[in-house]
Amino acid sequence: MTKTNSGNFFEDFRIGQEIRHATPRTVTEGDMALYTALYGSRFAFNSSAEFARDCGMPGQPLDDLAAFHVVFGKTVPDVSLNAVANLGYAGGSFGAPVYAGDTITTTSQVIGLKENSNKQTGVVYVRSTGVNQKGEMVVDYIRWVMVKKRDVNAAAPAELVPDLPDAVAASDLIIPPGLNTGKYDDVLAGSPHRWDDYAVGEKIDHVDGMTIEEAEHMMATRLWQNTAKVHFNQHTEGQGRFGRRLIYGGHIISLARALSFNGLGNAFKIAAINGGRHVNPTFAGDTIYAWSEVLEKFEIPGRSTLGALRLRLVALKNRSGADFTLKLEDGKSFDPAVVLDFDYTVLMPRR
Amino acid sequence: MTKTNSGNFFEDFRIGQEIRHATPRTVTEGDMALYTALYGSRFAFNSSAEFARDCGMPGQPLDDLAAFHVVFGKTVPDVSLNAVANLGYAGGSFGAPVYAGDTITTTSQVIGLKENSNKQTGVVYVRSTGVNQKGEMVVDYIRWVMVKKRDVNAAAPAELVPDLPDAVAASDLIIPPGLNTGKYDDVLAGSPHRWDDYAVGEKIDHVDGMTIEEAEHMMATRLWQNTAKVHFNQHTEGQGRFGRRLIYGGHIISLARALSFNGLGNAFKIAAINGGRHVNPTFAGDTIYAWSEVLEKFEIPGRSTLGALRLRLVALKNRSGADFTLKLEDGKSFDPAVVLDFDYTVLMPRR
Amino acid sequence: MTKTNSGNFFEDFRIGQEIRHATPRTVTEGDMALYTALYGSRFAFNSSAEFARDCGMPGQPLDDLAAFHVVFGKTVPDVSLNAVANLGYAGGSFGAPVYAGDTITTTSQVIGLKENSNKQTGVVYVRSTGVNQKGEMVVDYIRWVMVKKRDVNAAAPAELVPDLPDAVAASDLIIPPGLNTGKYDDVLAGSPHRWDDYAVGEKIDHVDGMTIEEAEHMMATRLWQNTAKVHFNQHTEGQGRFGRRLIYGGHIISLARALSFNGLGNAFKIAAINGGRHVNPTFAGDTIYAWSEVLEKFEIPGRSTLGALRLRLVALKNRSGADFTLKLEDGKSFDPAVVLDFDYTVLMPRR
Repeated sequence: MTKTNSGNFFEDFRIGQEIRHATPRTVTEGDMALYTALYGSRFAFNSSAEFARDCGMPGQPLDDLAAFHVVFGKTVPDVSLNAVANLGYAGGSFGAPVYAGDTITTTSQVIGLKENSNKQTGVVYVRSTGVNQKGEMVVDYIRWVMVKKRDVNAAAPAELVPDLPDAVAASDLIIPPGLNTGKYDDVLAGSPHRWDDYAVGEKIDHVDGMTIEEAEHMMATRLWQNTAKVHFNQHTEGQGRFGRRLIYGGHIISLARALSFNGLGNAFKIAAINGGRHVNPTFAGDTIYAWSEVLEKFEIPGRSTLGALRLRLVALKNRSGADFTLKLEDGKSFDPAVVLDFDYTVLMPRR
Repeated sequence: MTKTNSGNFFEDFRIGQEIRHATPRTVTEGDMALYTALYGSRFAFNSSAEFARDCGMPGQPLDDLAAFHVVFGKTVPDVSLNAVANLGYAGGSFGAPVYAGDTITTTSQVIGLKENSNKQTGVVYVRSTGVNQKGEMVVDYIRWVMVKKRDVNAAAPAELVPDLPDAVAASDLIIPPGLNTGKYDDVLAGSPHRWDDYAVGEKIDHVDGMTIEEAEHMMATRLWQNTAKVHFNQHTEGQGRFGRRLIYGGHIISLARALSFNGLGNAFKIAAINGGRHVNPTFAGDTIYAWSEVLEKFEIPGRSTLGALRLRLVALKNRSGADFTLKLEDGKSFDPAVVLDFDYTVLMPRR
Repeated sequence: MTKTNSGNFFEDFRIGQEIRHATPRTVTEGDMALYTALYGSRFAFNSSAEFARDCGMPGQPLDDLAAFHVVFGKTVPDVSLNAVANLGYAGGSFGAPVYAGDTITTTSQVIGLKENSNKQTGVVYVRSTGVNQKGEMVVDYIRWVMVKKRDVNAAAPAELVPDLPDAVAASDLIIPPGLNTGKYDDVLAGSPHRWDDYAVGEKIDHVDGMTIEEAEHMMATRLWQNTAKVHFNQHTEGQGRFGRRLIYGGHIISLARALSFNGLGNAFKIAAINGGRHVNPTFAGDTIYAWSEVLEKFEIPGRSTLGALRLRLVALKNRSGADFTLKLEDGKSFDPAVVLDFDYTVLMPRR
């Protein structure tokens, strides 16, 4: 009997199946430093313990997306080792902020399954949840992924396509206990623009571009203990579909979020991931740009000093965001320069 | 109104202007580990908590240059986003050592302005100061930088060219409270040569060379949250002046300082930056070498066991330091292999 | 007198000589994060403080090989700066686990010397020992290395070829006080296979491959403060034997160990290094694969819930481990794809 993990194939999943993922992870200040080195993030809330304490937190929390990546990475060996494509995200919530010393443990529940008509693959929907050592949810999201069948003749598991939320409702956003932006300092935060200053439909070109190196995306992806082979092995990928190592989609989300500081500097915390698609692959040598669109503005129930913005964050490769490039003229297909179409909700201080 | 930062142009500055910079930064042991990984520094004072405690410190301080880079990085969005060239440094002092957990906040004061004769650019002189969460100065230095005008027809601000100190005087060097080299162990420090053994005019070839990769200088520069575009964006820089991403000058200072351990192993602490110029650009693939010259020897008032050396540190690209290359035969222009001419003062134990 | 370190040459060593190495090193959570980013290790014992506490430890220990690299790095300036080849390891033991905040100091004793017949080089055998701030041994091993003579006419030092142990005996394995696998959770650990399930002679292909970048191996090698020039200087190495920077052999050991998680996920702790040889050089761009063979199974005296496996770990470049490639048909020479033949002993929970 082989002792190596061959991962799950489509026919191995069952609706309602609970998966406890391996390798719990204690997050440290080392992870925070690497996150800064890899993405150049400048949100004061994550950069400065003093700034975070002035916002009512016990210290600087780990970047929300780093928590997401830790949880995502743990699901790979069980959920997507035999994936053909990572299709989307929905219904993602951030709960308890993560501090250095916290240990994140991850589980997933299979919430949907649908075989594809070619019988060679199927779509697996999972809700993945990371909890800290106190059992508090830190991040919780749905993703769906196209997974190969081991045996095309195998019977498909019972089918269920879940209803996916279009977006996380304002009333469902989790505000960390103690969070208070009463002493929030716009100058230290790096932006004079507060929630009140953004309008639905407003688009922001984040101006700057960042070129990705192989060493960077591989270090990031290993840091999250994500084992997807396509990111690491040039010997096989050189013979594969692209002839290149493929960059982990989450790396692009983090780069685009860091670039978005320039224009959204007060979007200090991510509260929800409403949706997201990696619409084209990215490779080392590509330069990532980003632009955002304000999709909705939410008041936060019971909070007069804090608001939420639902944002579209679009990442482009080798093309400036100045034109707000998204779809081709047909209005359906994505422009080949677009690599990420991400829909998320941020918290921002109000005046 | 655009919400992105277009930085200040020459005509935006005023003499006496105070700038509070964004993104305070809590320094962690993660930053220390990355500093070692990026530069390979071997000074026991920064590497070992035990060694530092034997020198009277509460633990191992962050490398002095890392504190400098953190402060420098914060000034970029306000001071040098529209810079054509970083012209020089002067009058730099290191105050309170920085420990893991300290939060550095940075301000700058405009101390000089001079429009260039072409009316297209001007020189801006700023004194930038980083303080810790107790309000103690950690690093304080002058730099001057050539900044573009937004509008060549704009009136220049009032002109003032400051008197710049040639060097920080021995009496102005700040010795950290508690510092005591009575138990300093030369073997653990890695050098038998103390202050008494160095002579003014002595030159030291630091022998070793270090090749720089794109991923390394970009990770370093992002770690300091330095946003200068020229370091990161191959898509635009490929069309630019050099066709390459330009390496942050501070990366070269840190590499040269780390190389200088081989010959100056007991120069355990930087007390002052007297001056410095980045005289040629460096690119990924270049190999950095370094040599030093002892410019002056200072006794430290009231200290019989500690001395200071004023040193010239020269970094070369793709050329060994064995010939102590500096200027061309005209005695004025720098040799094209020279990338850094740095003048700084170190502390060293005496016999 | 030159102040730079020219290292020791063969004729400088003496049997019984004790060398205290420079640059004691305080290990931090930053080092742990970088270790994960560089190698992608997934052993829960090192990844999760909670998992480690459930095993009786005070928190997550530093990866054993990271402790080995720290100690190895410190020996380079004194032992192998003038080495032609790093020939082998033997008799390596891991003692006290290393935690963030521990300071490692390294000494070596010369235990063997033998001039080569060409009189140009000789073999130096050293036992190197790292101890923590409490004086507890953390790692202790023998390595031998071929070192150049400064002067081929110099008299060789007194000769002694030490008896090297074939392997560390089961009774000599050091089990950390408090270690208890009673609550060991196979699911969190990522493998259902315990000591009882492995058979002597069993071979495991670890399946995955990892391509190495220049920035990665240089960051790793600098993190260990290893100063061997061949790893860092393309300007000189481009003119040298290989035309390339040579990757530190320990980088390959760590990569192969991390890859071995897939098939040996419960081999949570390294107890001994019995032997090891870097049989071919590795360069950036190479993809590393690994396979293992179970050489011996040991019961641990007085322990019913913990066993030991003596393993051969073979790393290959640009060739899958599926064929368990090792020697050429002559049965003596290593296949050119083999870069590491490593013999070590791990601890694993029993049923």
